[in-house]
Amino acid sequence: MRPTPPARRFDPGRRDRIIDVTLEVVAAHGVAGTSHRKIAEAANVPLGSMTYHFTGMDELLTLAFTRLADRFADRFDARLRAAADAEQAQEAVVALITEDLLGSPRDVVLTYELYTLAARDPALREVTRAWMARSRQALQRHFDPATARYLDALIEGLAIHSALDPDPMSIDDITAAISRIIST
Amino acid sequence: MRPTPPARRFDPGRRDRIIDVTLEVVAAHGVAGTSHRKIAEAANVPLGSMTYHFTGMDELLTLAFTRLADRFADRFDARLRAAADAEQAQEAVVALITEDLLGSPRDVVLTYELYTLAARDPALREVTRAWMARSRQALQRHFDPATARYLDALIEGLAIHSALDPDPMSIDDITAAISRIIST
Repeated sequence: MRPTPPARRFDPGRRDRIIDVTLEVVAAHGVAGTSHRKIAEAANVPLGSMTYHFTGMDELLTLAFTRLADRFADRFDARLRAAADAEQAQEAVVALITEDLLGSPRDVVLTYELYTLAARDPALREVTRAWMARSRQALQRHFDPATARYLDALIEGLAIHSALDPDPMSIDDITAAISRIIST
Repeated sequence: MRPTPPARRFDPGRRDRIIDVTLEVVAAHGVAGTSHRKIAEAANVPLGSMTYHFTGMDELLTLAFTRLADRFADRFDARLRAAADAEQAQEAVVALITEDLLGSPRDVVLTYELYTLAARDPALREVTRAWMARSRQALQRHFDPATARYLDALIEGLAIHSALDPDPMSIDDITAAISRIIST
């Protein structure tokens, strides 16, 4: 009797699932605490899948964080596409900060993990560059390019200072700050 | 002959040195990759020193990041103290961003390590809260409290977007963005 070969489940979504699970592992352990072994265990795939599907940790982190950035950018774009005028665009920006950027503590942690990684490794700055480019493009539906760039930086700062301040800014304050930066 | 006791060097700066070395270890390995053992090795002290001097990793990280934040805040305060009027204060803010906040890649990495840690652990938000309070107080030498708060958020965003963009904003753009937020 021939020995039974090891079961090989048909698993077409494996690569995709590994990318998603990578963000979970980074959220739980930090980039510095993330390894192929931890990701393979969390995704319930053999360790060999990691080297089969990805050239290494850099590629995997780039793909995973690109997914995070695209998710934010998609929501940002949808909000600004739905805004009919500059006033609604300003409301959309406030909602972006208070609901999207600050809505999920897990995503806040992942965003700073990405910033730390990009600060350490210039290759990862392609992810942050592309994210900023998409944000500014979305803002340019309603604002000139310079205003879009300044506003994008202010959004970043308002989100961070709200996340890291036990007494965060009120929506009125956020709105007032945005009003100043968009007044030309 | 009595056995020689192990050498016990008089080392009054030990606790202080461990705190400084902690930032080096975090810069090299990330918070997630930092351990008492790594810090003790880097500081060239016995592992027992760590538990003798600190209640745990949380206290040590709080002390180390407070030192980082205080160093930034001291420079910020000195720059704004030296500014004679609002125009010089604006120049001081530009210098703060381009020279202090972005001057050292190591400090940029450490700043984001702090943000990630504070996002994960509310206890560490005392460090970011105190840092923001000192920055705003320094800005209030020249600007009203609301403007100081908005400007502080903009400084944060401008610094991050400059650090993480392969095509960073020019000094003229940074100056223009600041002009808008301080115009009341």
